Amino acid sequence: MRDQADCPVTPKAALIARRRALLSTFDGPALVAAGRAPARNYPANPYGFRANSHFLYFAARPMEGAALLFHDGKCTLLAQPPDPEDALWHGPRPTFEALADALGVDDVKSVGDAAQIVGSLDDVATLPPQDEATARWVSGLLGRTVTAGGGASLEGVDAALADAVISLRLVHDEAAVAQMRFAAAVSVEAHRAGMRATRPGAGEQATYAAMVDVFRRHGCEDAYPPIVTVHGEVLHQHAHDGATADGDLLLADVGGESPEGWAADITRTWPVGGSYSGSQRAIYDVVLEAQRRAIAAATPGRRYRDVHETAKRALVEGLVELGILRGEVDGLIERGAAALFFPHGVGHIIGLDVHDMEDLGDRAGYAPGRERAEAFGDAFLRLDRDLAPGMAVTIEPGFYQVPGILADERLTAAVGDDLRRDALAAFADVRGIRIEDDVLITDGGNEVLTGALAKEASEVEAIVRSG
Amino acid sequence: MRDQADCPVTPKAALIARRRALLSTFDGPALVAAGRAPARNYPANPYGFRANSHFLYFAARPMEGAALLFHDGKCTLLAQPPDPEDALWHGPRPTFEALADALGVDDVKSVGDAAQIVGSLDDVATLPPQDEATARWVSGLLGRTVTAGGGASLEGVDAALADAVISLRLVHDEAAVAQMRFAAAVSVEAHRAGMRATRPGAGEQATYAAMVDVFRRHGCEDAYPPIVTVHGEVLHQHAHDGATADGDLLLADVGGESPEGWAADITRTWPVGGSYSGSQRAIYDVVLEAQRRAIAAATPGRRYRDVHETAKRALVEGLVELGILRGEVDGLIERGAAALFFPHGVGHIIGLDVHDMEDLGDRAGYAPGRERAEAFGDAFLRLDRDLAPGMAVTIEPGFYQVPGILADERLTAAVGDDLRRDALAAFADVRGIRIEDDVLITDGGNEVLTGALAKEASEVEAIVRSG
Repeated sequence: MRDQADCPVTPKAALIARRRALLSTFDGPALVAAGRAPARNYPANPYGFRANSHFLYFAARPMEGAALLFHDGKCTLLAQPPDPEDALWHGPRPTFEALADALGVDDVKSVGDAAQIVGSLDDVATLPPQDEATARWVSGLLGRTVTAGGGASLEGVDAALADAVISLRLVHDEAAVAQMRFAAAVSVEAHRAGMRATRPGAGEQATYAAMVDVFRRHGCEDAYPPIVTVHGEVLHQHAHDGATADGDLLLADVGGESPEGWAADITRTWPVGGSYSGSQRAIYDVVLEAQRRAIAAATPGRRYRDVHETAKRALVEGLVELGILRGEVDGLIERGAAALFFPHGVGHIIGLDVHDMEDLGDRAGYAPGRERAEAFGDAFLRLDRDLAPGMAVTIEPGFYQVPGILADERLTAAVGDDLRRDALAAFADVRGIRIEDDVLITDGGNEVLTGALAKEASEVEAIVRSG
Repeated sequence: MRDQADCPVTPKAALIARRRALLSTFDGPALVAAGRAPARNYPANPYGFRANSHFLYFAARPMEGAALLFHDGKCTLLAQPPDPEDALWHGPRPTFEALADALGVDDVKSVGDAAQIVGSLDDVATLPPQDEATARWVSGLLGRTVTAGGGASLEGVDAALADAVISLRLVHDEAAVAQMRFAAAVSVEAHRAGMRATRPGAGEQATYAAMVDVFRRHGCEDAYPPIVTVHGEVLHQHAHDGATADGDLLLADVGGESPEGWAADITRTWPVGGSYSGSQRAIYDVVLEAQRRAIAAATPGRRYRDVHETAKRALVEGLVELGILRGEVDGLIERGAAALFFPHGVGHIIGLDVHDMEDLGDRAGYAPGRERAEAFGDAFLRLDRDLAPGMAVTIEPGFYQVPGILADERLTAAVGDDLRRDALAAFADVRGIRIEDDVLITDGGNEVLTGALAKEASEVEAIVRSG
């Protein structure tokens, strides 16, 4: 088993190159803040600090209370000034000189020196802080109101800075890919451990505990609130304290985050008892075929919306073959048949955030001039750009029997009787299935970063049974 | 092994009794908010929500965006109104009627109905929110500025409400004790697992992973940022990615939090290689004796500051015996000799927070009229009340060689040559030792809630070696 020492460290040269790239495309001063840890119970008992992703992109270290100041073609790290109490409570901290050398920045100064460095902070661009504690801090620093989560309504220099950062972060460099490979490898190992730990009566918690244990051993965290549930039809089911019984499918959407903050995002759906039923296996294979075709379509120059449509078409074809839908595939898709069972988008960009740069609203996910569709299902697609080498996306089609959808006359009317509810009844033991991998777009096509994890039904069964 | 099903649930009757007790001692309307989850990367990717402890005390459920409104001798739960999207994404939520029945509140209303219920929100008391996201929400709700972490400067009705809540939460009822026993039992199991997982070359991370795995299997979280380090002399060392070598002592200050939010807080210090060296064993036994005497002193009616002084005295006596200090014990204590090696308080109250109610500043920890001492070391004592049955406290003396203290002329001058640095040099392999248990004050004396965990040096060695 690999251990934490295997975790790659982004080389200083890569950080310098990223900062130079920003300085070459964005004119004028800019502040990228790491943020503050929000209090959990009280200030001295905070949540485990997670630095802002933009900061991590340029600094690779979760330095609470620090910021990067881009100005005059240079980058200065603004750090918390050394505190005489550090020696007592926190041990020695690196000097400013050591920090400058480790990060390859042009200079390191105290946060309080920011105004002096750039003359005036009036025109300094910044990105929307992720949380209110950071927003209060950055607002105080810049002397203007900066709103947490304000990524959807950026203006002026802030919008220009966001666009410059998006251009960089959309295309992953070698160091970024190394981080994502690590997160993917640990997450693959976690899923295998979860499969082996799953059994009737053990409960969802036992599966999740086995997965997160792998994360911890590699110094990783959950990249997002994990889903580990036998109720895959509840799309945002974040409790994992339910019982597991023979006959259940367990859906695990769990991904690790590398110590530097890079995400993986994997979903597998496996049989608690070690064998898919005939009905489960049939639907599983339909979803798997949809995922295969979508991955094959995710190549340079391809519009991501087409990948989404590819998955929809494969799903509808499969459901027609199983007799759950009736009629001609094009017409069924037009009438919204895919969204009745697959109501979300086929995926999203991934990087330092699992939904990469979602803090900037749709500015990162949608190419200029493109907007979200209005149709139910399609409206939830988070990405509509033309794919290019270096981009990383998830591909995650699914099939769910969501009571709130199938009972909603407004959503089902257009398909009407061509949704064969009598045939569907034979698949009642399939509540929800999703299969998700992370895909790096390459010059030649793509590479599935999470491809080491089994997804053929028989292979998945074999892992579950080996536990 | 116990599993999550063992976790006790606070009975409705206990919650009703707590609310009645508050209504009988606090006059006028009061709002106790559960809070909001702060964003981690972006709003849809938050930190795992941890509800405000005061809310948990009266409701026992982490209901994000909810609040309890005490008014007119009644308690109304203010909940987020049902959202039509719930059926699609979150599955069915309990109805307001079901919530009222489950919690035993007088009524359940939408948060937006608060003003209507009490006529005006102008005079509604509240407690300081734990974080900025919650502060913004509560400020908007009450129409006045409520500051996150503002517990040290409460005024008016807010101060009166805080005092009423403190009176209740200081004395744990049966249901609270059941929660703390659970958290203690899981934490004891975690420490045993951590001891067994520790070995030269495995790294601190392997120890912590084994401990947190036990938490997860029981549905627990870390109650506070864990300390797992071979550098016990760095008192706030929250990284646990260091190497472990034969000859190192590993200090683990790790405690679990029950699913309802109740904390345990345990420290043990064990030899990485399975055997304390002679010098390590000698100091370990001094710290253990200090802890034993302090626990014996923690009885009803006793002032907690005396417990702290008991530990200091035992420590100084032991160090004199080892030749590290020279001279008469009373004089050495007066000259600050204890704080040179034991610079923190002997403990704190514990309950729903590991430092219980520290969100209210020293209002909870210090009896009216008592204030923090000025002397180095003593100034960090978090608790100075007379102990009473039902209170729970930690007892956690330690010995550390903190370079920043031992090299500080201002701190060491008064002891001078009576600190025998030549003798101390023989104990260079003892960087930091702490031994901590959770103690419930009883009518007859006390009960060590975490007493099932070995602390005799030979017993600890046996567990480490069994791994």
